[in-house]
Amino acid sequence: MPRLTHPRLDDVPLENLLHALADPARLAIVRKLDADGCAGGEGLACGGAAGCDMPRATLSHHFATLRAAGLIESRKQGVQVINRLRRDEVDRRFPGVLAAILAV
Amino acid sequence: MPRLTHPRLDDVPLENLLHALADPARLAIVRKLDADGCAGGEGLACGGAAGCDMPRATLSHHFATLRAAGLIESRKQGVQVINRLRRDEVDRRFPGVLAAILAV
Repeated sequence: MPRLTHPRLDDVPLENLLHALADPARLAIVRKLDADGCAGGEGLACGGAAGCDMPRATLSHHFATLRAAGLIESRKQGVQVINRLRRDEVDRRFPGVLAAILAV
Repeated sequence: MPRLTHPRLDDVPLENLLHALADPARLAIVRKLDADGCAGGEGLACGGAAGCDMPRATLSHHFATLRAAGLIESRKQGVQVINRLRRDEVDRRFPGVLAAILAV
């Protein structure tokens, strides 16, 4: 697997963030990662964040979209990829947006 | 032109709202309609809300997408279509979401 890259939040336009969240599966992943972060977790593997009933390629696409929008940070840990929500950074860049969306 | 239809906000999922806003041109239209509403305006014609440098079909697609997501109400007035933001209804359905997005 190539090295995973992450954008600077300053380089992410609002439209990209909204596009990444405009999908029920990705929004569900973000909700799970937010709950994990709020509970003091250190991140979730892709399967744990998205459920196991999704084709691997679809899963991979969703996580790549979230990563490209600056929403998640992914790190390799053994054979797994562990993901966490970049909640603080997103909140600084787009104040109130993620909070309002996750509260719906 | 067929009769323009508008969804009930209760029938609009959050993802559809976010998808409609995840485009720079549509977000710009929503900002203009919000400014018009805040200034006590009664709505804007499509050209006035989107600028005149957009192909008619593109313009029409953007307004249809915003209408289908429950974001705007469009009414015929002579040969024009006048659009207004359904700000109050959207705010009731998705509290704080539009406010946070428009504040970015």
